[in-house]
Amino acid sequence: MPRPRLAEALFKPRAVALIGVSDDADKTTGRPLRFLRKHGYAGPIYPINPNRSAVQGEPAFARIGDAPGPVDHAYILVNTPAVEAAVTACAEAGVAVATILASGFAEAGAEGRERQRRIVEIARGHGMRLVGPNSLGIVNTQAPLALTANAAFAADALPRGRLTVLSQSGSLIGTLVSRGAARGIGFGKLISVGNEADLSVGEIGAAVADDPETDAFLLFLETIRAREEIARFAALAHRAGKPIIAYKLGRSDVGQALAVSHTGAMVGSDAAVDAFLRHHGILRVDHLEALLEMPPLILGRRPPSIGHSRVGVIATTGGGAATVVDRLGLLGVEVAPASADTLAKLRAVKVPEQSGPIVDVTLAGTRYEVMRPALDILMDAPEFALVLATIGSSAQFQPELAVKPIVDCAREKKPLAVFLTPQADETLRLLARQNIAAFRTPESCADAIAAYLAWQAPTATVTANTEKLARAAGMLRAIRGDVLDEQRSLVLFEALGVPVSRSHVIDPTKALPALPFPFPVAAKILSSDITHKTEAGGVALEITTSAELGERARELVSTARSRHPSARIEGVLVQPMERGVGEVLVGYRLDAQAGPVVTVGMGGTLAEIYRDYAVRVAPVALDQATEMTAEVRGFAALRGYRRRPPGDIAALAEVIAALSALAMVTERTILEAEINPLIVKAAGQGVVAVDGVVRLAPAQV
Amino acid sequence: MPRPRLAEALFKPRAVALIGVSDDADKTTGRPLRFLRKHGYAGPIYPINPNRSAVQGEPAFARIGDAPGPVDHAYILVNTPAVEAAVTACAEAGVAVATILASGFAEAGAEGRERQRRIVEIARGHGMRLVGPNSLGIVNTQAPLALTANAAFAADALPRGRLTVLSQSGSLIGTLVSRGAARGIGFGKLISVGNEADLSVGEIGAAVADDPETDAFLLFLETIRAREEIARFAALAHRAGKPIIAYKLGRSDVGQALAVSHTGAMVGSDAAVDAFLRHHGILRVDHLEALLEMPPLILGRRPPSIGHSRVGVIATTGGGAATVVDRLGLLGVEVAPASADTLAKLRAVKVPEQSGPIVDVTLAGTRYEVMRPALDILMDAPEFALVLATIGSSAQFQPELAVKPIVDCAREKKPLAVFLTPQADETLRLLARQNIAAFRTPESCADAIAAYLAWQAPTATVTANTEKLARAAGMLRAIRGDVLDEQRSLVLFEALGVPVSRSHVIDPTKALPALPFPFPVAAKILSSDITHKTEAGGVALEITTSAELGERARELVSTARSRHPSARIEGVLVQPMERGVGEVLVGYRLDAQAGPVVTVGMGGTLAEIYRDYAVRVAPVALDQATEMTAEVRGFAALRGYRRRPPGDIAALAEVIAALSALAMVTERTILEAEINPLIVKAAGQGVVAVDGVVRLAPAQV
Repeated sequence: MPRPRLAEALFKPRAVALIGVSDDADKTTGRPLRFLRKHGYAGPIYPINPNRSAVQGEPAFARIGDAPGPVDHAYILVNTPAVEAAVTACAEAGVAVATILASGFAEAGAEGRERQRRIVEIARGHGMRLVGPNSLGIVNTQAPLALTANAAFAADALPRGRLTVLSQSGSLIGTLVSRGAARGIGFGKLISVGNEADLSVGEIGAAVADDPETDAFLLFLETIRAREEIARFAALAHRAGKPIIAYKLGRSDVGQALAVSHTGAMVGSDAAVDAFLRHHGILRVDHLEALLEMPPLILGRRPPSIGHSRVGVIATTGGGAATVVDRLGLLGVEVAPASADTLAKLRAVKVPEQSGPIVDVTLAGTRYEVMRPALDILMDAPEFALVLATIGSSAQFQPELAVKPIVDCAREKKPLAVFLTPQADETLRLLARQNIAAFRTPESCADAIAAYLAWQAPTATVTANTEKLARAAGMLRAIRGDVLDEQRSLVLFEALGVPVSRSHVIDPTKALPALPFPFPVAAKILSSDITHKTEAGGVALEITTSAELGERARELVSTARSRHPSARIEGVLVQPMERGVGEVLVGYRLDAQAGPVVTVGMGGTLAEIYRDYAVRVAPVALDQATEMTAEVRGFAALRGYRRRPPGDIAALAEVIAALSALAMVTERTILEAEINPLIVKAAGQGVVAVDGVVRLAPAQV
Repeated sequence: MPRPRLAEALFKPRAVALIGVSDDADKTTGRPLRFLRKHGYAGPIYPINPNRSAVQGEPAFARIGDAPGPVDHAYILVNTPAVEAAVTACAEAGVAVATILASGFAEAGAEGRERQRRIVEIARGHGMRLVGPNSLGIVNTQAPLALTANAAFAADALPRGRLTVLSQSGSLIGTLVSRGAARGIGFGKLISVGNEADLSVGEIGAAVADDPETDAFLLFLETIRAREEIARFAALAHRAGKPIIAYKLGRSDVGQALAVSHTGAMVGSDAAVDAFLRHHGILRVDHLEALLEMPPLILGRRPPSIGHSRVGVIATTGGGAATVVDRLGLLGVEVAPASADTLAKLRAVKVPEQSGPIVDVTLAGTRYEVMRPALDILMDAPEFALVLATIGSSAQFQPELAVKPIVDCAREKKPLAVFLTPQADETLRLLARQNIAAFRTPESCADAIAAYLAWQAPTATVTANTEKLARAAGMLRAIRGDVLDEQRSLVLFEALGVPVSRSHVIDPTKALPALPFPFPVAAKILSSDITHKTEAGGVALEITTSAELGERARELVSTARSRHPSARIEGVLVQPMERGVGEVLVGYRLDAQAGPVVTVGMGGTLAEIYRDYAVRVAPVALDQATEMTAEVRGFAALRGYRRRPPGDIAALAEVIAALSALAMVTERTILEAEINPLIVKAAGQGVVAVDGVVRLAPAQV
């Protein structure tokens, strides 16, 4: 029997082994055998248990090597300390994929990390792949295969479907399956990826990106581990026309901390994760139930064209629709009244006169002969990118009548979201059967609509400017330490094409040379050991004469010496006083989850206080950089707020793009780089970087 | 028969009349008769229909006056144009309360407003009270009474309960009732208040605030109309120990606009509404379903003590609990690990070693003998103000087992919220039966927890400083116009106790007098017709000599004349240049919904851009004003962020309290007053108002 492809070994194994399966069908380690049988797995199942000749009434084998046939997939159910031996036995027996239930690996300190490293090494040495550890298993309703310890699969029958779920939390699979089953939403493949010691969400996704039985992917993420593989998965899924929708924990700091303690992952910033997902065309929802409810909204669709994002609303209950519309407003989604043309068409089909953004047909009753043509008119109206229909009590008492106009209308034209205000289980099921997106709560509905409208195709790769990169690489080769002081940082930025302030380093103990630029000037202590120079008394501004410069420079040095006795002081940096209409911060960072990102925000402390910055995966092209400048609320002044002179936004965008090219520098790994401040002058007069810092990963020797 | 009390006439009428009831029991205007009978109303029902001798098989009367007995409550079901005559007939027949179904009143332009005014006048002339117009009616499951046209009451049986619902949207009552029925959550009294032409939410609530059949009130609000009555209702309900929970539309601008078009209400700011509700001890939820799910969390409880707001979390599914905890983090709720003492107690009952803020009992299994003592320990732990229990698949497959530890634990000690991750209808019903707060979504659960922790008792009344108010009133008596220019505004503020900048008005066409303060000075054009003086070129700063002052003052006047040819220019105001560590804006406003509010935020455009301000109902006491200064994120610098010198926050708080006293001025109605900027000096050095404006309502002649 030839070794199967990864997708087959994972989801359609020809034979499975259960290592350490319990005789007690109710115990977690007994469930996989029970569930495989219950849900009708067709291939051979080899229970492996050295202590029993039969398990749950089936013949058992002492060792995997005793199994009478080859095994595509083994589920290792033994305790943590026994996992390594089981992995070895499976690998030696030629198993293609082993899934590991036990926890106590990378999420459990240094010892656990070492344990995890060893099992990966063993598996790789034999060409065996691993799922987990900490995996509740794998289900494929289409095969069928229920190779899982997840209690949710105790349910008698599960609706089949064409949604594939990849989850870092095993129990959340149960949440989705049971909630879906209650309203007729089925799943195809579901996998609990656990710690992703070997196979990651991205690699598993990529293996089934072209799966003909999958229409869309749902991800439940606690962290992002192998981002390059997620990127590859996203690109393949996009090419195959299969959207990926993610719910990701870690929106809040406590949520991020949870992900760490839970899975041993590193903490990054949620804004960076958001940028990463958007960059790769992955939709993100904020409400858990939206993950379940959203798919039909986008199945078979491509990301909407940017700037065309108005939502048309029709309702048999104005109050119910208002709950969604109010929420959409909070999410920045435009809900607009119909055009004069559309209103005229609505009048022609007896829809009462409308005012405001909701086409309210309450007064016309919820009759098919009004609702159907009204829906068709909205689906046809060029001013709307998406239509929301809100159905009131008819959804509860007359499900067939309530769904008929929705089912019959011109649904192919644009996405259609349905919010049902009452409890209306039958209507939810009827809509699910027709693959129509129906929502139980106004918040989930608004969340999904906003996610759809924010959806973008994976971002194109940015072309490198090889000449600038070579200059930057040359400069970095000369660097020995891990922190670039202000002067060297500016040299690096300049190599990448950032306009930087002229500067001149002086030694205050010697006679002052003539400066290559006129007064007034600023002077700053030059030391890579002193950060936050302003707070440290290390900056003097508005110096107007040579004598004053000498005096202030000596003061700077003595202040620095007294406050930071151990700091190495490289001199005093003198720069012309630069003036502009605003100061901004442009940053680059290697995020623990999202990888290289570029950030722009207000200078000073405001960006931090208000979390007001734009973030993108680096590098960015100029058009993306321009988009970023439009996102920062605090840049209202730079954009010419209230008659103030606008700043040179175009030059700012060029700097963002230039700094983001640090992601393409291969000479050294750049952990962090910051231009703070970048002085933005009036439109047409450019920008200039006056201060900055760069931190590098230790050089590899 | 004596005239009944309002509460009785509304919810327990001894006899009802249905004016214009249709013979077609399926039509909206036919339903009230059908529903009254279906749900077993015990008193006499008088169908009134001039065109039929029988309606739905019951004898009908041509006119209300023909009814054989007195009528406590009439439901007027006729078309809009016929309402006035019906109201007159009811009033003349001695009906106590008439509820009106038709729309087309205050929400429908000037004509509708006039129509509404007339029916109120007629009713008042006869001592009859009105509900609506635009009311879907009134239900009392305890009476029983289903005097309603709401299709939701077509359901065969409705669970009774002790929650009373007051809703500005009739259809939302159907949403609550049907969703509640599906999970065993029942209601007592429900009323669709419609336009509140006569009886408002507040007056109706006040009438039943001491209702022995009501445990809590739920409000669905689109706007706030009669705020004084809501305040009275809130005070009575608080005294009776009955919490009020509100869901209010209008969080977003589009939501506010909807409320206007829908109900003819005025727009105010949502932050003011938030302040108003909190001021009166009304809890506000953000998720619609939380309105239904939250009540058991707080029944019989009082607002928590401020500063004690940590949440303890126990879970049989770590991933499921993380979805709530992450959300709580976003809402600023602290989820903290258990204390060492609590952890020791948990170990003693065999709960596995914990790290992080979630007590995860997954590994211990979901056994009663672990879960029950663990829950008791958390309910007992002094570090937690509230406990969240998250239950996974056992909620789906073993409802009795899943709820037993929750039902049995020491529930009286603090609020307990339960989040169920799977679809678990039976468990939801079991918990509802025990009056335990159970949540279907992590978002609704986090929303309710945050609302509970933010809950405050109604705020105490602030004592007036009669001397200052008398000074302010005296000053206002002398004002003729509706706008106070800068100088007069500062005089008014000073009367209230606000430190204001010294100032001197000069006439630039004449010889300059000696100034009563030293240079440098600032000069501003003085004109109540010119707002945004800086943008209008009406301000000159840092003037150092008398000659310069004369020149700059003449420039200001000529610039103002050329840019604002019709403005009346009263001179040039000269002030000392005031310097501080920050500039803030302190504002007072008569909000359309919330009434008088006081606001504090950053000066300049930042407060607006970031919506970063604190708002309270005015007047405020000094401790509330101090609280406000702590809420503004942008005041980090004033609070001494990053070694900067802190500002005089105490003096700032005094100014907030002083300005808020404008709410107690009765001489003129003050629409708006703004100190912008108030210069905040270093701690101990005070604050000073340097500019401001006051707008008054036109004086009554």
